[in-house]
Amino acid sequence: MAAHSPLSAILVEEAGFDGIWASGFELSALYGLPDVSVMSMSQHLDMVRSMAEHSSLPIIADIDAGFGNAINVIYAVKQYERAGAAAVVIEDKTFPKVTSLVSDGRQELVRIEEFAGKVRAAVAVRSTPDFLVIARTEALIAGLGQAEALKRAAAYAAAGADMILIHSKQRTPDEVESFVRTWDGNAPIVIIPTSYPQLTEQRIRALGKISMVIYGNHAIRAAVTAMKDIFARIRADGGIHRVDRDIVGVEEIFRLQKMEEVKEDECRFLK
Amino acid sequence: MAAHSPLSAILVEEAGFDGIWASGFELSALYGLPDVSVMSMSQHLDMVRSMAEHSSLPIIADIDAGFGNAINVIYAVKQYERAGAAAVVIEDKTFPKVTSLVSDGRQELVRIEEFAGKVRAAVAVRSTPDFLVIARTEALIAGLGQAEALKRAAAYAAAGADMILIHSKQRTPDEVESFVRTWDGNAPIVIIPTSYPQLTEQRIRALGKISMVIYGNHAIRAAVTAMKDIFARIRADGGIHRVDRDIVGVEEIFRLQKMEEVKEDECRFLK
Amino acid sequence: MAAHSPLSAILVEEAGFDGIWASGFELSALYGLPDVSVMSMSQHLDMVRSMAEHSSLPIIADIDAGFGNAINVIYAVKQYERAGAAAVVIEDKTFPKVTSLVSDGRQELVRIEEFAGKVRAAVAVRSTPDFLVIARTEALIAGLGQAEALKRAAAYAAAGADMILIHSKQRTPDEVESFVRTWDGNAPIVIIPTSYPQLTEQRIRALGKISMVIYGNHAIRAAVTAMKDIFARIRADGGIHRVDRDIVGVEEIFRLQKMEEVKEDECRFLK
Amino acid sequence: MAAHSPLSAILVEEAGFDGIWASGFELSALYGLPDVSVMSMSQHLDMVRSMAEHSSLPIIADIDAGFGNAINVIYAVKQYERAGAAAVVIEDKTFPKVTSLVSDGRQELVRIEEFAGKVRAAVAVRSTPDFLVIARTEALIAGLGQAEALKRAAAYAAAGADMILIHSKQRTPDEVESFVRTWDGNAPIVIIPTSYPQLTEQRIRALGKISMVIYGNHAIRAAVTAMKDIFARIRADGGIHRVDRDIVGVEEIFRLQKMEEVKEDECRFLK
Repeated sequence: MAAHSPLSAILVEEAGFDGIWASGFELSALYGLPDVSVMSMSQHLDMVRSMAEHSSLPIIADIDAGFGNAINVIYAVKQYERAGAAAVVIEDKTFPKVTSLVSDGRQELVRIEEFAGKVRAAVAVRSTPDFLVIARTEALIAGLGQAEALKRAAAYAAAGADMILIHSKQRTPDEVESFVRTWDGNAPIVIIPTSYPQLTEQRIRALGKISMVIYGNHAIRAAVTAMKDIFARIRADGGIHRVDRDIVGVEEIFRLQKMEEVKEDECRFLK
Repeated sequence: MAAHSPLSAILVEEAGFDGIWASGFELSALYGLPDVSVMSMSQHLDMVRSMAEHSSLPIIADIDAGFGNAINVIYAVKQYERAGAAAVVIEDKTFPKVTSLVSDGRQELVRIEEFAGKVRAAVAVRSTPDFLVIARTEALIAGLGQAEALKRAAAYAAAGADMILIHSKQRTPDEVESFVRTWDGNAPIVIIPTSYPQLTEQRIRALGKISMVIYGNHAIRAAVTAMKDIFARIRADGGIHRVDRDIVGVEEIFRLQKMEEVKEDECRFLK
Repeated sequence: MAAHSPLSAILVEEAGFDGIWASGFELSALYGLPDVSVMSMSQHLDMVRSMAEHSSLPIIADIDAGFGNAINVIYAVKQYERAGAAAVVIEDKTFPKVTSLVSDGRQELVRIEEFAGKVRAAVAVRSTPDFLVIARTEALIAGLGQAEALKRAAAYAAAGADMILIHSKQRTPDEVESFVRTWDGNAPIVIIPTSYPQLTEQRIRALGKISMVIYGNHAIRAAVTAMKDIFARIRADGGIHRVDRDIVGVEEIFRLQKMEEVKEDECRFLK
Repeated sequence: MAAHSPLSAILVEEAGFDGIWASGFELSALYGLPDVSVMSMSQHLDMVRSMAEHSSLPIIADIDAGFGNAINVIYAVKQYERAGAAAVVIEDKTFPKVTSLVSDGRQELVRIEEFAGKVRAAVAVRSTPDFLVIARTEALIAGLGQAEALKRAAAYAAAGADMILIHSKQRTPDEVESFVRTWDGNAPIVIIPTSYPQLTEQRIRALGKISMVIYGNHAIRAAVTAMKDIFARIRADGGIHRVDRDIVGVEEIFRLQKMEEVKEDECRFLK
C-alpha cells in the first residue's frame, strides 16, 4: 500500500499490509508538486529513511527512471539500500518525466540496451541480493504493444531484474492479463491496478505469476478526501463542535506518536 | 486551520479559511515523532517554506518554545520571516518540552523575565512589524491560575507581543472565557479550542477581544481517520474495487498538483 | 569567486570580489561526490540560500543543465530566485552530465531549439528582469567549433539570455579570445579561465565584451591544499604544537561566526 | 582529526589519522553560524551520514548537550548510530549553549543526576555496546575545580559512559595533566588539546590513561587560512595565473571525487 509519510507507513503496517510503496506520486502530491521529476532524490530518500525507522515492513522505493542515467541509478541504489529500503522500482521512461506525448512525438522510453544497462548497474552495486531490483516497463502505456512489452521484460530479466512491473492505464485488466498469460520468464510479475480496480486479489491469485500488487495512490487520495470534507464542514458549521465526533481523537495521534514510550522514558531518565 | 504539508495548506486555502496554522504537533505526527522537540527546526522550517510557495494565505508558524533561549528565538524569527511565514507563536514552556509534570514536580514554565526577553528579541529582529510575534502562555495548563496567566499576558504584551495566545485544556470554555472577560490589555487574543469545541465561532464573536481562532490538529486527525478506514476496507474487500468510488480520483490529485500548468509549459517550452 | 559554503562566501566577500559563484563542482566535491548530477537540487539550493543569508554579494547559481528539461528549469528558476540568488547559469549539455564521450559517441549537447526553450522558460518565469539568466554553451568543449558556438550563443541570446558564458578547456586563451573577437551580439560574455589562467584581468579588459570572469574552483582547491598540508604536518609532528602558528586562531573563526553579536544579544535578551 | 564535510573526512583518512571528529564547531562555522545550538541536529546528522559513506574510519559525533534533555538524547543516539557514527560525545552543559557566564551568573552545567540520566539513556538505547557513549565534563571550564570534575567523571562512568572527555581551556596542560594523574576510574580519558598544543602525543603517551586525542578545529582553521590567502593573492595579482601553481590541480579534486570510478561505470553500464 502506498504511503507518503512515516505516519501513513505506520497505518499501512497496522492495517496488515505486507509492504509499503514509497510512492513518488504521493510524495510529490504531499509537497504540492507535479510528479514530473521536480521533487529531488534527497527529499524522497529522506522520507524513505524516516519510514524505515517507523515500520518493520519492507519498503519498495519508487525511484522513477532512477534520477538520470545508469550512473545516477548506481548512486540511488546505494543510497536507498542504506536508507533501509527493501527494493527499488526503476522504469524505462526517459528522465525527466514528460506528462504526455508532446507535439513532436518524442520517444518516451529509453532504448532497451540503455535500460538494461541501468538494471545491470543496480544489480551490480547492491550490497546484498536480498535488496530487490524491480524493472518497470511502460511499453503498454507508451502504446508500443504487447510484443514490445514482452521483449523489454525479457531483456530486463536477463539483465538481472528480480521482478518485472508491467503497467497499464486501460480501464479494464485485459491488457495486463494478456501480458501475464503470455509471459514465460522466471521473474515474478508486479502490477499496479489503479485504473482497473476490478482486478481483485482473488482474480490476481487465480491468474498466477503475479507476486506483488501495489495500491499506488490510495493513501493520499483518502487523506485528501477527508481533509476536503472536514474542512468544508468546519466552515459550514462555524466551528469544530460537529466534526469532533467523526474524526479520531487527539489521543489516537498520541498513540501513533508513541507518547506512552516518551512518558516512560521521562520517568526513567529525566532526573 | 492546521496544516502539515503543502498539500493540506492548499486544501485549507481552497476551503476558505483565513490562514494556515503550521502546526508542530501535526508535522511531528506526520513524521511519526512525538511532539517533544525531537523534530528539528530545519524540518519545520522547510515545510513552512514549501507551504508558503503553494498558498497565498498568511502562515502562522508554531515554533513551540523557540528551539531554546532568546538566541535561538532570534535565529528562528529571521529564518521563519525569510521562509515566508506571516507570524510566529512562541510559548512560555521550557525547552525541550516535557510531556507532563514528572515526579519531582519540575517547573514547566520559564520565568516571566526570561520569556519577556524572548519576546523582545523576536520583536527586535523581525524586519517588518507586519510579521507578528504571538506570545502563548501555558499558565492555565500548568495549573498556575488566572491571575498568573493575566500577569504573564500583560508582561508579554508589554515586551512587544502583538497578540496573546491563551491555552487551556479544560473540557469546557469557562476558563478561557473567564480569562478573556478579565483581560483588559490592548493585545488581541488567540485561542485553540481543541478541548472545548462547543465554543463556536458565533460564541467567540459574541465574547469579543478574540481576533484569531486556531483549529490545531483537525487536518491530521481527518487524514488519519480516512487512511485507517480506507486501508481497513481494502484489506477486508481484498482489493480496491469498492473504495474507489469513495475517495477522490487521481484527476483531483493532478489538479492539486497543477498538472495542467505543466502540460501547458511543456507545449510552450519543450521543443 | 567560487564558494562551496556560507563560510567561503563570507571570505569571498571579505576579499573584495564582486560576486559569488555557487559552484556545483565545488559543492559536489565538498560532499565527496563526482560532479555528474548526483548531488540533488535540494542540496545545492539549501547551500545557496544559506550563502544568501551570510553575504550581500550577488550569487550566481551554477545549475548545470537545469536538472532536466524546461519544466525542471522553470521549477529551478523559481526556487533559486526565492532563495536569494541573483542569477543562474544554465548549460546546453544533456542531463544528466556524462564525464566524457563514451564509446558510442553519444551527442553531448542538446539541440539548439531545446536549449533555447529552456532559456525562454527561465526568462518567462523569473519574477523580475533583475534576476539574470546566463546561457552557457559547451560547443567548444564538445569539439563542435567556433561557428557552432557562435550560432548557439546567438540563438540563446535571441531566446532571452542576459549573458553568454563561453567555456573552453584549451590550455591557452586563443579559442576563447577568438570567439570574443568574433561575437557581435548584444549579450555580454562570461568566461571561466580555469585552464588558461594566463588570461589575466588586464588582458580581459583589453579584449572587451567580457563582463564577468568566474574563478570556478579555487576555493575548494585552496582548502584541500591546506588541509592536506596541515594534516600531514600534524601526523609528522606527533601533535598540533608546530602547526598552530601557521593557521588562523580560533578567535578568527569566532569572528567569522559573529560570536560578538551573540554575546551582545545574550546581554540584551537573556534574562 | 576534526572534519566538517565528507571531503575533509576523506582527507583525514588519507592523512592516516585513526578517526574522524564530526565537530559541531567546525560544521557551524562552515554554515557561517555561531556554535550556540542554532545549527539543527538534522544538519549535523546529515553531514555525519555523508561522512560515513565516504570514509571507513570511526566517526565520533560531537552532539553537544544532546539537543535537549534525556528524551532528545535517546532520539539522537538512535539517529547517529543509524547514520553510521561509531560514538557520540555528550557534554554536561545546559542546552542551549550559552557563550559565557552572563550577568546573572546562571549555572552553566546541569545537575550531576540529570546528566547521569542522559548517559544512562544513551547507553540504554544504543543497539550495540560497540557504539561508544563518551561523557564530556565542562567542570574545569566552568571553574568548578578538579574535585567537582572528578566527582562528575566518576558519576558519569558509573552511569555507563565508556569514556570520559575532560576539557580545559587553560593555556598550559597542567590542569588536564593533574586531572589525569588523579583519575582512578576504569573509563579511559579523552582530551582536546586546542589551547595547550604543547601536550604532544609523546607526552600524552607518557602520561597514560588517555586513549583518545581530538584535534578539534584544525581542518576548518587550515581551510580558512588558505582561502583567505589565495583569495587575497588573486585580488592582488588581478587573475589566477600566479596562484595556480600553489594549489592542488583540478585533477586532484577529480581524484577525491572518484571520477575514475564514474568513467569505468560509464563504460560498463551506459549503453
